[in-house]
Amino acid sequence: MSRDAVQPYYPGTLPAPRNAWYVCAFSDEVGERPMSRRILGDRIVFYRTEAGDPVALADYCPHRAVALSHGKRVEGDRIQCIYHGMEFGPDGHCRRVPSQKAVPRAMATRSYPLAERWRWIWIWMGDPDAADESLIPDHSTFGLGEDDGFYKIQRFRMDIGGSFQLLHENLLDVSHITFLHEGMFDSGTIAETPATTEIDGNVITMTRRLTETVSGPYARQFGLEEGTRVNRQLIAKTFIPALNINTNIFEFPDDPERPACTRHAPFGITPETERSCHYFTASASDYGVRPEGEALEAQNRNVWNVFLTDKLAIESIQQSYDEMGAATPDASVRADEAAVRFRRIVMRMAADEAAEA
Amino acid sequence: MSRDAVQPYYPGTLPAPRNAWYVCAFSDEVGERPMSRRILGDRIVFYRTEAGDPVALADYCPHRAVALSHGKRVEGDRIQCIYHGMEFGPDGHCRRVPSQKAVPRAMATRSYPLAERWRWIWIWMGDPDAADESLIPDHSTFGLGEDDGFYKIQRFRMDIGGSFQLLHENLLDVSHITFLHEGMFDSGTIAETPATTEIDGNVITMTRRLTETVSGPYARQFGLEEGTRVNRQLIAKTFIPALNINTNIFEFPDDPERPACTRHAPFGITPETERSCHYFTASASDYGVRPEGEALEAQNRNVWNVFLTDKLAIESIQQSYDEMGAATPDASVRADEAAVRFRRIVMRMAADEAAEA
Amino acid sequence: MSRDAVQPYYPGTLPAPRNAWYVCAFSDEVGERPMSRRILGDRIVFYRTEAGDPVALADYCPHRAVALSHGKRVEGDRIQCIYHGMEFGPDGHCRRVPSQKAVPRAMATRSYPLAERWRWIWIWMGDPDAADESLIPDHSTFGLGEDDGFYKIQRFRMDIGGSFQLLHENLLDVSHITFLHEGMFDSGTIAETPATTEIDGNVITMTRRLTETVSGPYARQFGLEEGTRVNRQLIAKTFIPALNINTNIFEFPDDPERPACTRHAPFGITPETERSCHYFTASASDYGVRPEGEALEAQNRNVWNVFLTDKLAIESIQQSYDEMGAATPDASVRADEAAVRFRRIVMRMAADEAAEA
Repeated sequence: MSRDAVQPYYPGTLPAPRNAWYVCAFSDEVGERPMSRRILGDRIVFYRTEAGDPVALADYCPHRAVALSHGKRVEGDRIQCIYHGMEFGPDGHCRRVPSQKAVPRAMATRSYPLAERWRWIWIWMGDPDAADESLIPDHSTFGLGEDDGFYKIQRFRMDIGGSFQLLHENLLDVSHITFLHEGMFDSGTIAETPATTEIDGNVITMTRRLTETVSGPYARQFGLEEGTRVNRQLIAKTFIPALNINTNIFEFPDDPERPACTRHAPFGITPETERSCHYFTASASDYGVRPEGEALEAQNRNVWNVFLTDKLAIESIQQSYDEMGAATPDASVRADEAAVRFRRIVMRMAADEAAEA
Repeated sequence: MSRDAVQPYYPGTLPAPRNAWYVCAFSDEVGERPMSRRILGDRIVFYRTEAGDPVALADYCPHRAVALSHGKRVEGDRIQCIYHGMEFGPDGHCRRVPSQKAVPRAMATRSYPLAERWRWIWIWMGDPDAADESLIPDHSTFGLGEDDGFYKIQRFRMDIGGSFQLLHENLLDVSHITFLHEGMFDSGTIAETPATTEIDGNVITMTRRLTETVSGPYARQFGLEEGTRVNRQLIAKTFIPALNINTNIFEFPDDPERPACTRHAPFGITPETERSCHYFTASASDYGVRPEGEALEAQNRNVWNVFLTDKLAIESIQQSYDEMGAATPDASVRADEAAVRFRRIVMRMAADEAAEA
Repeated sequence: MSRDAVQPYYPGTLPAPRNAWYVCAFSDEVGERPMSRRILGDRIVFYRTEAGDPVALADYCPHRAVALSHGKRVEGDRIQCIYHGMEFGPDGHCRRVPSQKAVPRAMATRSYPLAERWRWIWIWMGDPDAADESLIPDHSTFGLGEDDGFYKIQRFRMDIGGSFQLLHENLLDVSHITFLHEGMFDSGTIAETPATTEIDGNVITMTRRLTETVSGPYARQFGLEEGTRVNRQLIAKTFIPALNINTNIFEFPDDPERPACTRHAPFGITPETERSCHYFTASASDYGVRPEGEALEAQNRNVWNVFLTDKLAIESIQQSYDEMGAATPDASVRADEAAVRFRRIVMRMAADEAAEA
């Protein structure tokens, strides 16, 4: 295989930083009944206390390692192991061993810090003492803040059989929209439009400016009138390692009175294992397009079908990495600038974490 | 993960002794047509000779390694390879090579000693010369002897995706009955009742004494009248490494004339691989409860459904071990005493075998 | 396991020579739409140019390793990547990067030499500069030449979960016909008939001469009259590593005027991975038996069903190798002479290739 350059790392298995917040669930996925999900390789059980607080514990009974998610919530805030009836509180400590009075100190499972923002539950995967909620990206900057006037849509979670890196790179190289999503989100111009890339700490912002006439599925997707000419800003912003926001701002050169329209598509990107990730999708717009009921379901189905082709591409890449490892072809072009910078930043974060540990 | 103590071994892959008898099949599973089953990792073909004797051979033709179980029994006691027609006797030696007159001495497959007791066929997995049938536990001590007056039920074989160790520990920590099998086999008292544990060579006996009032599924399961008060002895006896007998003896304090009732539930436990085992279940009672036909089928279905939850718990533990290896949580409590002793004895047997070899 | 002798190699994973031509597809499997197939471990995309020439490229986009087979043929002879729209020519070089004018030299994927003979497409898996078409076995010697008077049948491709070695050995030890295919292709005599084996470079020819009376499925298979007495030559000829021809020549001692009949069954044998292979089957006869339409479909179905038992045997052997590796039993008899020589020649070819590299 030809390669542009030997990479100093193995692209398909870029390590996921642990000292970070990730979206782990939509709010309505966590309730009284325990739910099990793998995040950064850890199997975690989620449930809500009777008071409504979400809880995340390592999904292993410390006694004999049965999944706690097979059990049930009991007595307000405890979860009970299905096997021998031991009960655990939200801090992971055992509160009751039915066969004896004393509870051994070692009878405890790990508890993970959580924070609920909009309809997303965020989880801190690193040292609990370092779980600073101010590190969660400010939801009001991408249309998911409280009382910000944006119409918010919770779309869906899609599970993808590829590294979180491949999903991030998908969203950072928007030139794929012109081909993989032909006719769905542009008039065929994005790939050929050069981008500017800015880096600010762990935030990458990539911007394209283009003039298009909207039509067909592209017009319907954004709720714009067929044939409207727009000046479009397309911004892909990534808060490494957990969030990407795809923002479109439309201005109308033929109707100078008409106010600009903004639509954010915030995407929570969460490693499940080294080779798979969860994709939590949403949308927020400020210009009176407010699909509900059937219309919203139809839009969600449509977006789901489109995103299935991203899933296909990402899983195809992951399969290539799994087969060929470091020999996988990986020749870059200029449109990959943001993706290549993403890799470097993640590698630096991983190196920092390793140095601290 | 918190742990009570570092284990000197990796619980999920406790080695299975080979110099031992194991139940390998119910009698009615072995007939004229070859049947393949894996025991302690070995793929073995079983069939019966025309005279009715069960045969167990390594399920590989010594010529080109096709499974002999794809073939058929021919000429009285021989099995024929489907591929090139070679024939083997019950001792594993080739009796005919169709393409030539001479039979090479190397054309032989391993033969395993068998012994049939009640409806169980036992197999010796170690050195054939050491296959001493007197080492098979005496079936008359748990209701499966000849003419012992016990009503015997052959239930079913359940294949479990977990180590034989995990099934043994399930049966040795009967406190799980109160939770995993809530309401099915006790009145909620077993877990809180302390046990005495005795060790005699490779035999562990764990006894609990309790007074209960039987009701609901628990009463129906044992064929006792709803609301009867009983003094109950619950005995879990394990002949390491292959057999567990769960025995219940009921006495009736409100009716001193009424004779005591005994029900044994003998369980053959046989490693299939390091991560899976076969579970051969039976029952024997001496007090006139003799379900047949539909009633027996309903009882077997019910027990099957209950045991599926044991399978769920065991496979969940095995999955945890497979994911985490030696880091799997394994904090013990007093109710685990028999299980912990079981581990030590199996480790000692494995060490003895390694020393001999 | 007993063994005749320790083998100097591990039979189940005999290496496949790369400097060789292999059948990679029937002609009608390759068209405008890309098709992906694995050959000698390489994932390869096949398509035809608008001019009708077959093309084989490594099935990975050199940019980000998406499978090119997810894309489509565009503009005459190019294939386009589904993800970011890059286009590649039959030589594997990129012709267009939509997001920029310049095409990096590294943006290329491997191209494999192909040659079309009869309805088979042959592929050269080694150094392209060494791809000499004169090394392809002469199709006119086994009934697949042009205007040779033979009636040619394209049967089917069967994918087999076993090494190409095991399929070759199946076809070289025809004694299996008497047992695995009992009654289908002989009157029960092949296994007991001794063979002569000749070696000429990389070609093994094994011949048996027998006199039989044809009947039943055997007669129908060859289109001969029930009860005809024949002098039969059965020849298994292998061009290592890619082709086996099973040839039958029938003479009629009771009708000296009747001309001899010849039927070739040429088999393309192509490694897919170390543990699986493709089986491309055909037939060519010179004696006026010309099944078509329904009759041909019925014959193909019948041959398919018979070959499924070869697949069963080969996959059973592969499973044994996968379980036991070098400890797999492998005791040989005289009928294995050709198979054992096949192994030696393949090992020598592999050693020669290793020495060159």
